[in-house]
Amino acid sequence: MKSEKISYKKYLQLDKLLNSQALKSLEHGNEVHDEMLFIIIHQTYELWFKQILHELDSVIDMFKGNYVQEENTGIVVARLGRIIEIQKLLIDQVGILETMTPMDFLEFRDLLTPASGFQSIQFREIENKLGMEVEKRVRFGNQRYDEHLESEDQKVALESEKNLSLFMLIENWLERTPFLQFEEFNFWKSYQKAVEQMINDDVERIKTNNDIDDTAQESSLKNYDSIKKTYEALFDENKYVKLLTAGHRRLSQKATLGALFIKLYRDEPILQLPHRLLTQLVDMDQLLTSWRYRHLLLVFRMIGVKIGTGGSAGHGYLKKTAEKHSIFRDISNLSTYIIPRSSLPSLPEKLKKELGFYYTYGK
Amino acid sequence: MKSEKISYKKYLQLDKLLNSQALKSLEHGNEVHDEMLFIIIHQTYELWFKQILHELDSVIDMFKGNYVQEENTGIVVARLGRIIEIQKLLIDQVGILETMTPMDFLEFRDLLTPASGFQSIQFREIENKLGMEVEKRVRFGNQRYDEHLESEDQKVALESEKNLSLFMLIENWLERTPFLQFEEFNFWKSYQKAVEQMINDDVERIKTNNDIDDTAQESSLKNYDSIKKTYEALFDENKYVKLLTAGHRRLSQKATLGALFIKLYRDEPILQLPHRLLTQLVDMDQLLTSWRYRHLLLVFRMIGVKIGTGGSAGHGYLKKTAEKHSIFRDISNLSTYIIPRSSLPSLPEKLKKELGFYYTYGK
Amino acid sequence: MKSEKISYKKYLQLDKLLNSQALKSLEHGNEVHDEMLFIIIHQTYELWFKQILHELDSVIDMFKGNYVQEENTGIVVARLGRIIEIQKLLIDQVGILETMTPMDFLEFRDLLTPASGFQSIQFREIENKLGMEVEKRVRFGNQRYDEHLESEDQKVALESEKNLSLFMLIENWLERTPFLQFEEFNFWKSYQKAVEQMINDDVERIKTNNDIDDTAQESSLKNYDSIKKTYEALFDENKYVKLLTAGHRRLSQKATLGALFIKLYRDEPILQLPHRLLTQLVDMDQLLTSWRYRHLLLVFRMIGVKIGTGGSAGHGYLKKTAEKHSIFRDISNLSTYIIPRSSLPSLPEKLKKELGFYYTYGK
Amino acid sequence: MKSEKISYKKYLQLDKLLNSQALKSLEHGNEVHDEMLFIIIHQTYELWFKQILHELDSVIDMFKGNYVQEENTGIVVARLGRIIEIQKLLIDQVGILETMTPMDFLEFRDLLTPASGFQSIQFREIENKLGMEVEKRVRFGNQRYDEHLESEDQKVALESEKNLSLFMLIENWLERTPFLQFEEFNFWKSYQKAVEQMINDDVERIKTNNDIDDTAQESSLKNYDSIKKTYEALFDENKYVKLLTAGHRRLSQKATLGALFIKLYRDEPILQLPHRLLTQLVDMDQLLTSWRYRHLLLVFRMIGVKIGTGGSAGHGYLKKTAEKHSIFRDISNLSTYIIPRSSLPSLPEKLKKELGFYYTYGK
Repeated sequence: MKSEKISYKKYLQLDKLLNSQALKSLEHGNEVHDEMLFIIIHQTYELWFKQILHELDSVIDMFKGNYVQEENTGIVVARLGRIIEIQKLLIDQVGILETMTPMDFLEFRDLLTPASGFQSIQFREIENKLGMEVEKRVRFGNQRYDEHLESEDQKVALESEKNLSLFMLIENWLERTPFLQFEEFNFWKSYQKAVEQMINDDVERIKTNNDIDDTAQESSLKNYDSIKKTYEALFDENKYVKLLTAGHRRLSQKATLGALFIKLYRDEPILQLPHRLLTQLVDMDQLLTSWRYRHLLLVFRMIGVKIGTGGSAGHGYLKKTAEKHSIFRDISNLSTYIIPRSSLPSLPEKLKKELGFYYTYGK
Repeated sequence: MKSEKISYKKYLQLDKLLNSQALKSLEHGNEVHDEMLFIIIHQTYELWFKQILHELDSVIDMFKGNYVQEENTGIVVARLGRIIEIQKLLIDQVGILETMTPMDFLEFRDLLTPASGFQSIQFREIENKLGMEVEKRVRFGNQRYDEHLESEDQKVALESEKNLSLFMLIENWLERTPFLQFEEFNFWKSYQKAVEQMINDDVERIKTNNDIDDTAQESSLKNYDSIKKTYEALFDENKYVKLLTAGHRRLSQKATLGALFIKLYRDEPILQLPHRLLTQLVDMDQLLTSWRYRHLLLVFRMIGVKIGTGGSAGHGYLKKTAEKHSIFRDISNLSTYIIPRSSLPSLPEKLKKELGFYYTYGK
Repeated sequence: MKSEKISYKKYLQLDKLLNSQALKSLEHGNEVHDEMLFIIIHQTYELWFKQILHELDSVIDMFKGNYVQEENTGIVVARLGRIIEIQKLLIDQVGILETMTPMDFLEFRDLLTPASGFQSIQFREIENKLGMEVEKRVRFGNQRYDEHLESEDQKVALESEKNLSLFMLIENWLERTPFLQFEEFNFWKSYQKAVEQMINDDVERIKTNNDIDDTAQESSLKNYDSIKKTYEALFDENKYVKLLTAGHRRLSQKATLGALFIKLYRDEPILQLPHRLLTQLVDMDQLLTSWRYRHLLLVFRMIGVKIGTGGSAGHGYLKKTAEKHSIFRDISNLSTYIIPRSSLPSLPEKLKKELGFYYTYGK
Repeated sequence: MKSEKISYKKYLQLDKLLNSQALKSLEHGNEVHDEMLFIIIHQTYELWFKQILHELDSVIDMFKGNYVQEENTGIVVARLGRIIEIQKLLIDQVGILETMTPMDFLEFRDLLTPASGFQSIQFREIENKLGMEVEKRVRFGNQRYDEHLESEDQKVALESEKNLSLFMLIENWLERTPFLQFEEFNFWKSYQKAVEQMINDDVERIKTNNDIDDTAQESSLKNYDSIKKTYEALFDENKYVKLLTAGHRRLSQKATLGALFIKLYRDEPILQLPHRLLTQLVDMDQLLTSWRYRHLLLVFRMIGVKIGTGGSAGHGYLKKTAEKHSIFRDISNLSTYIIPRSSLPSLPEKLKKELGFYYTYGK
């Protein structure tokens, strides 16, 4: 039947899609040319958000349960990799909106009040599903972010807050890292020694450095004191709990040790994908921050330090979110404890085998 | 009335937009995860095409009539600049689709037959409005591109073919360049001398170059012969008409001279924006080519040299369009006749004044 | 003479260039493969710094004296445009260094002590020539940045501090904007009215916004109070001097008004290039900040919060410079006072003529 | 000893590096500002070429011998990944040179004759070490590329031609793919069946497609005939040898099968890195082509279709190299034979184990 034939246009539902741009300025009788761009760029953002959620949901599903199937690690890495590519595009895309001049934007800005990007429920879902801590969200006044949403969207937001986030699932997955309790474990001790050596060398270098003055020296030494303390806490359950309680850490001690093991022995076959995954989490975090920052500059270019169309947010709010809304910071913080390749304790033969391919060791 | 309040969601018609993704694989009972990406990326492409058409239409409107208002040149440059930014994004965006593996694509590819990107009416409109020559379109078999379109879209395509294209309007505008007939005009002669000098120097260099062999020398000299001939035709109406008739040139002689004048004296105040505009036309052409080329590589990565879902096109067709579908090549070809800055004939004082600001010369 | 023939190799002095990579790790008997990348990327940075200085010096030269020749504005814009392209490359280039793992970096890091990027004299020159305020430099301890330089370089640094910076020259140039004192000047008044209207509308919107709570409202209103005050100071010499003295402003009142005029009437022919120039200054500032920020993330990825090889700086120092070292902020701050295009007071006919082309008005 | 202290300046040999820019135009008494950019950009290119060679040499070393150590595959992938990042930068970098106008370039172009980028020995080494076929190099006249080099450089070029190239080493490595001869091997047969099915479906679709005319149909069917033949040759030694002899293929049959196996079963743990490596080879090829193409556009923008400073090459030559100089095309051509994921024959349990981790199967 000819009428059944699938066409490009029907497949992509272009009739709907390309008829979804209603300019407010036109409605008010005075079309502003640039409002079309404003609508279309936000629509592409929302389409990409849908795609990110599609990937994120599938990744979260794979991490549920007590075991991540081996072949799924590859898929997870591929899908997070796709999210990262999308994030890069979203950042570059800001450049297109920058072709709009402030004078043209101000021409229709007031017509949009009180609509605001603040109300993007998909963006809130992304944040929540990644694992944004509700209580750490930057507030405007004493209000929660969801008080600005329609009631239907509020439900969706709360739902996404309550469900297991990628952060929690990654934490569980890291806690299950099997090789942490491997037999005698003397390599943890040699690792500790290597870190101490590295830190002590640095401290020594600070103390004997004639190029810096006393104030600088003092502040550096204080910094190293704190490095040492957090480091010691890594291997001491009580100390670690204190850091958690004080809000200095979010990731559990066990998960942190798992992540550290992966970061140190990333070259072992079985750890290569897990290591890429950890790197991706940090990348996603940084790209989210970059996007916020780029967005912030754009808003500033458009309206300076005035308020946003939502009647609330604006430059100050955005600046704070760019600085504070990091999710996987405990993983990126581990870089302080990375040691030179040559200082890396070699693994017990038996463990090395476990981390390798069957083809290599299975005979 | 509270219910009247404009919200982000209503403004962007997200209910429609985010419910326009119907996976064929799901319809066939076996959802393929990656089909969502395939739909969404094409939808964002179509949204951006709409934006490009929005800009292109407005630019074409401004060029209609016998006179482009001065303040409009700035607007035209700004809007073409926006199209260029969008084109860059469209190229980068291919990178996201590259995160899909061929094995996953093949999983739902057959379900899409015979739909094909070939059927994007908006893309055809962009080509036609820019000024793609109908008779120069790469054909598949003996068929015209519009035979693959729905009848409603065919009408739109033909309409856009018949209307004045940007190419034609730019040609008219260039022909109106006022300063070509400025009084005695001796500077055209000194320009001709300068080009001849440059070409002769090159020819001399080829003849005395011991580093290349006879075959190479001969082929270089032949190349310069042809450069010389086309150059001479620039100033000789009869010769130029022959080039036009033979299809070696598309832009009229008068328009070409206008473009050349602008390119040479681009630094004079009144020519700065026109020069940017000419550069933008060449940029748009090149970016369209780059996009086709990038698309070609992607298709190759996905299906190799097999046919496309439209049952027709594929790799070979795309390769030809990437090579042939250039619109403003006569303008980019002018770079052969650019001369060193120091050889540029100085303009008659009176003409220089005409090209300057009133503030400078108006007293 | 054949021996005199210029060759690619001699022209680029490749014998010197490609023999300037001496790995410290090799010298210490244990070559670390990745040290080559570390050297070469820094060498390319320094080559690009040389190019930036080459452009910056030429721009500064053109701005000296009491008059910037008309044709030079175009050249200045072209050269700043080139600096901007280079800055973008420098940021992207960080991505290459990110292919080095921390474990590999730590392998040779200690061998480099106390060398540090802190000692790049060319970078300091760039900062100083742009107009970095010496007293606002982030300090480490109580030391000035130049105390870490060799004595020869210290001289160069101090020299570049004392000379006229781009900031100062731009300030002078803006103060000379001719049309500020143009006859009756009623359009300044209508502009003031338009801004007041815009601000009052915003304040009204805040006061009647039921979606935000009292705390948020209060903080928004306080923000607008300060916007209003700075705005009023723009037109009141005494108030402006207070802002300058308190360090809230750096750019003189007259220059600020000149910049504002250019921003508002950017579409007038004679103001188009000056407006692009102002935009470029803000772009350069933001790109410098982005580079610092990207560099910061890289350092964090490599060594976490430990100290740098200079024995001093590290993450904390870099973070502060990224936040504070802005030069043209007073120009970017003007965006707060941009008004909708339709509210822009039209210029007196006579002034409009002055801003136009001779060709248009000269008859 | 204080004098022994390593400094940033000494470490990077900045005294040499930043004093290696001698402008020919200055030597001829008339400094052209933009010549500095021309020198510096080429110097950074050469520095990056050195880095690419540094990585390439180390990769080639690891592939020598009969066995690539497991941990080295990861290092190889990391280093090729770095080359790819550098290649992307080299392409972007062209944008900086595009800020030079043709008129400015022509001002010093003649002073450089007969020097030419054609003489970059490092670039030739890169081509040769990757595996460029000497006899397939695009010639200018009847001359070999090395006839334009200094005698010392000629030696280096010939040396790099004779040594084992990455292409050859990869070919050997692929030929050693162990699992091709795994026991009963019925999965190769099912794979063949799956490809035949896919091709036959396509052929059927062409035959019953009423949307295309006879000419198009015929040409499509001819294309599929050739696809089928090359495909059959994959499993037939005699047929394959004919393709090799005729120059239609370069990679040996055994290596091609190895590559195909890796591409098909890329998700199995032990094949993940090899698959990334194959992808990287294709990426490197495509990026080299993109660079040539971008370079070509730049040259065209600068001098049109005139000759280059080497007195020889120019636009025509560059165009041919962009089209022909591909090295790993046999690997990218495999995409024609990729099948849908669901058609992929499942591996014998025993083989699956061999491809997995010891941790999973070793108990």
